[in-house]
Amino acid sequence: MTAMYNLFRDLPTSPDTRERIDCLLDRPGLRVERIVSTGQASPSGFWYDQIEHEWVVLLQGAAELTVDLPDGPQIVSLRPGDSLELPARRRHRVEATCADPPTLWLAVFWPSDAA
Amino acid sequence: MTAMYNLFRDLPTSPDTRERIDCLLDRPGLRVERIVSTGQASPSGFWYDQIEHEWVVLLQGAAELTVDLPDGPQIVSLRPGDSLELPARRRHRVEATCADPPTLWLAVFWPSDAA
Repeated sequence: MTAMYNLFRDLPTSPDTRERIDCLLDRPGLRVERIVSTGQASPSGFWYDQIEHEWVVLLQGAAELTVDLPDGPQIVSLRPGDSLELPARRRHRVEATCADPPTLWLAVFWPSDAA
Repeated sequence: MTAMYNLFRDLPTSPDTRERIDCLLDRPGLRVERIVSTGQASPSGFWYDQIEHEWVVLLQGAAELTVDLPDGPQIVSLRPGDSLELPARRRHRVEATCADPPTLWLAVFWPSDAA
């Protein structure tokens, strides 16, 4: 079977209380997620500190991240099409996301010990 | 360093003679490519028969594929946002791609023996 999934389907028409995460693909060594944000941001003081590597692209909306680099935190503004690699343990947080239109992310995760 | 890459950058303003392929990410067990098609199609009789698994999403433009399924070839029309998994050795060909706007694909490849 050939099952298609459209990334723009079922987008919220008004802000949700939380982000929506849909797993599009879950295979050994690889996971692809669609994430829809409608204004959510990381709680104060919260940092993602993931054991997986991540590559993310913003496809609609806008967002601002802080990425904790060795030489200090860096603010990163993302517009449609912008992609970014976030290696495992690279601490980062979401400062802001656009609600209208909803912010649509595609995120690819893979293990940090892949060989 | 935080290196960003915008998927929509440097798109051709007129049809190219061939597809453009840019490798955005090349990691153990994972490769992400941007592919830009401007009207190209697979040559008559040609089939992709890949040893890697592929997951592909069309982000702009349009395309028509033929996927060779166990119960026969299936025509698949892709519009922006449509995504599809193409397992290793699932023969497929590109019947047509839109040139204006350029057809923009994001393709994720991973080994068929990933464990």
